[in-house]
Amino acid sequence: MSGFAPQASSADLGVYGLGVMGSNLARNLARNGYSVAVFNRTLARTERLMERHGQEGDFVPAQELKDFVAALRVPRVAIIMVQAGAGTEAAISQLADLMEPGDIIVDAGNTLYTDTRRREEALRERGIHFVGMGVSGGEEGALLGPSIMPGGTAESYRRLGPMLESISAKVDGVPCCTHVGPDGAGHFVKMVHNGIEYADMQLIAEAYDLLRRVGGLSVPQIAEVFRDWKDSELDSYLIDVTTEVLERTDPATGRPFVDVVVDAASQKGTGVWTTQTALDLGVAVPAIAEATFARAASSSDRLRSAVRTAEIDPGTADQPPMSDQERRDFIDSVKQALYGSKIAAYAQGFDEIATASQRYGWDIDLGAMATIWRAGCIIRARFLEDITRAYAQDPALPSLLAAPALSSALSTALPAWRRVVATSALAGVPAPAFASSLAYLDQLRAERLPAALIQGQRDFFGSHTYHRVDDPEGVYHVLWATEDRPEEKWD
Amino acid sequence: MSGFAPQASSADLGVYGLGVMGSNLARNLARNGYSVAVFNRTLARTERLMERHGQEGDFVPAQELKDFVAALRVPRVAIIMVQAGAGTEAAISQLADLMEPGDIIVDAGNTLYTDTRRREEALRERGIHFVGMGVSGGEEGALLGPSIMPGGTAESYRRLGPMLESISAKVDGVPCCTHVGPDGAGHFVKMVHNGIEYADMQLIAEAYDLLRRVGGLSVPQIAEVFRDWKDSELDSYLIDVTTEVLERTDPATGRPFVDVVVDAASQKGTGVWTTQTALDLGVAVPAIAEATFARAASSSDRLRSAVRTAEIDPGTADQPPMSDQERRDFIDSVKQALYGSKIAAYAQGFDEIATASQRYGWDIDLGAMATIWRAGCIIRARFLEDITRAYAQDPALPSLLAAPALSSALSTALPAWRRVVATSALAGVPAPAFASSLAYLDQLRAERLPAALIQGQRDFFGSHTYHRVDDPEGVYHVLWATEDRPEEKWD
Repeated sequence: MSGFAPQASSADLGVYGLGVMGSNLARNLARNGYSVAVFNRTLARTERLMERHGQEGDFVPAQELKDFVAALRVPRVAIIMVQAGAGTEAAISQLADLMEPGDIIVDAGNTLYTDTRRREEALRERGIHFVGMGVSGGEEGALLGPSIMPGGTAESYRRLGPMLESISAKVDGVPCCTHVGPDGAGHFVKMVHNGIEYADMQLIAEAYDLLRRVGGLSVPQIAEVFRDWKDSELDSYLIDVTTEVLERTDPATGRPFVDVVVDAASQKGTGVWTTQTALDLGVAVPAIAEATFARAASSSDRLRSAVRTAEIDPGTADQPPMSDQERRDFIDSVKQALYGSKIAAYAQGFDEIATASQRYGWDIDLGAMATIWRAGCIIRARFLEDITRAYAQDPALPSLLAAPALSSALSTALPAWRRVVATSALAGVPAPAFASSLAYLDQLRAERLPAALIQGQRDFFGSHTYHRVDDPEGVYHVLWATEDRPEEKWD
Repeated sequence: MSGFAPQASSADLGVYGLGVMGSNLARNLARNGYSVAVFNRTLARTERLMERHGQEGDFVPAQELKDFVAALRVPRVAIIMVQAGAGTEAAISQLADLMEPGDIIVDAGNTLYTDTRRREEALRERGIHFVGMGVSGGEEGALLGPSIMPGGTAESYRRLGPMLESISAKVDGVPCCTHVGPDGAGHFVKMVHNGIEYADMQLIAEAYDLLRRVGGLSVPQIAEVFRDWKDSELDSYLIDVTTEVLERTDPATGRPFVDVVVDAASQKGTGVWTTQTALDLGVAVPAIAEATFARAASSSDRLRSAVRTAEIDPGTADQPPMSDQERRDFIDSVKQALYGSKIAAYAQGFDEIATASQRYGWDIDLGAMATIWRAGCIIRARFLEDITRAYAQDPALPSLLAAPALSSALSTALPAWRRVVATSALAGVPAPAFASSLAYLDQLRAERLPAALIQGQRDFFGSHTYHRVDDPEGVYHVLWATEDRPEEKWD
């Protein structure tokens, strides 16, 4: 590495952290004509990148962090792509000590937005722009075109934006990258993207399970059903992935691949964060929560083996075998349930973004989020065009459920969706995300909710008070413990 | 107040904070023969307590905090009952500065257990015992006998326990108070108690809503149904409360009281905490989460009015009117659904406690928790006897669902519970907690879950790897992007 001569202020930007994601991002930038300084804490990774891909573009490798920083043209841009947590914290602090006011540090990892807000505030006081940036699309996306969700100042985006837009995925020439909003907005939106991804995957998994265990379809038949669904409003990357997984035969056993995989779903935490944050914000995201809990339940050997061996009579009704027509109808019903539930799950995620945007003054353009998710990221789907259009028609749309095109899709889906949830309950084939998405819609549709009874209970045992329908601003309490139980108005 | 002469080292313990809860706790202690020092930041409250209730027992009022501390016999015990948060933090810090090694500071508010753990650790270094203590039962409980859940050291409990046990609720002479476990264990258990309370209230609300909107019962008829359920396994304080609320006629309008209450349920945060903590611990608590989200959804005017006015055809099947026999059957089915769901919700809460106990080395006796909840607290219920017995028979019981008595109750409930969830979906009367509780059970019952498909998807798009059923320890990955897609074993 003695051949790495420091080059002063020539690189357009730098990438700190050359794991697969960082390397691929650096290569993507270099291939798009940018001069890219590269640095890794262990030199071997930098050397490997240069050996294998050094000829792909204009890389400026640095052995020492100070050389890396010195190689950047002013105002400097350094993108950090290391393990979230302590690694990111250390990288930011080291970089900041070497940088000057006006420079830009970008954290491209999956960092919790509250950490990003804290770091942005601290660096702002030193005049350094700190950008929390979501990058979706996995390793392949990073190399060939991810969906990019940068937060931070508008000023930083003027310097960063053109580079990011040129390496991002495109749809009809429109880049899947936009300035999301100030401070933690980019990481927030990426977090919710992942939460929606959890829900989407769980919904697909429930559809598969129902087709198999209620519909009696074989795995290859189900793969065919998913392949058909590609030519519909369900068309999405995750449907493609599902088809590929279900089409695979395990070479070792000749069985369907899905049957040799242990049925315990892992998670890396963004579903947990999305749900916890929604709870902080008072936003209902039951589909995302159910998806997260379903992974937890699947991974609990202790609970599963205890309940499986307990003598619980499931009380399921026998399913008479389906005729071909009934099976075709059932497949179509599951498709409707999947689509309706998907709309509800996305509505929950967008509500979470809208609420945070309001809370933090981020002024996020919700339609633009759907636009930048149309390619590059895991939840890319045809359906996102409908969301973009919905917000274009009404930027203040309070819920996706109320967008005319989606209301109409829900109306079409609902009768079958209801039947599928009912069948799931009766057959004992669990569909928690289908069921909770339907209940979410039915709660919001209801003229009156039994929450009134809950308020009555709370007033009874805890003097928590209530409002009256004929005086919604007034605060009332019943003196439940006294003989004639008068109602008092409190001020 | 000039008449408050400092009395040295005479009081058995002290209460800091004389709001309704603190006053009632102090009165309960004084009535039980203890000498109770009392202090409040604003003197007026201390004076009011002495004026109104000073004759009920041996109170030692203090005007200054140093006099309050000086009044306590050694080792000193001071119970703080102030607003959680900054107020509690300040009270602890002021008290600690005046106390000595071996003294005991008790926080009796609803504090998040992580704060309690932090404070306990800090005070332990100074030799002071810090006890986070859950107190349930509201104002009336504090005065007449609450359920008490103290954490902290065993040593502190030897000093505190006899006093707490004498003022707690009793069942057949057994106090509803026990040493829960070290540091934050007491506050943790109180938090989960409240989370279960959220689920219990939501389940009751769903039962009421179904009886009304599907069963066609009037509010007084539903009150009668709940009154009948008191003579069953559902017998509980919350069933009593529900009956009382439903029996009330609004004097101003002559309408059922529940119909004049605004149907937006408020919350004070413990449902949120219970769900967020379960997510941290990887424990599935969908019934508690759905209950928490249902309150949030009910309170969102913005979402509700948007969805109500959207043109969504609900797609519900018309309900033919029920015959008397059908209505009786439906009422019984709802009862079964409520009982089955309740078992599932409690199983989730106890799983959360068991998991935290393991994680933090608390060694919590789960059966004892059910025992101390049998009276004094909001979720007191006959059913808790079954839980106590279940853990007595098998202290290592992995899930309440697997306890023989409860498995058998579930077997009885399941056919009707399934029909009720199906009816809810078809009729469009949302029952998110009934449905998610059933799905929870069905997930844990399942021989195979579609989590296997999710692991396949994750391996495809993110190289997240999977285990094989024929090699559950091995880590595998398919090279999906290559021509013949070989499977690799990773080490």
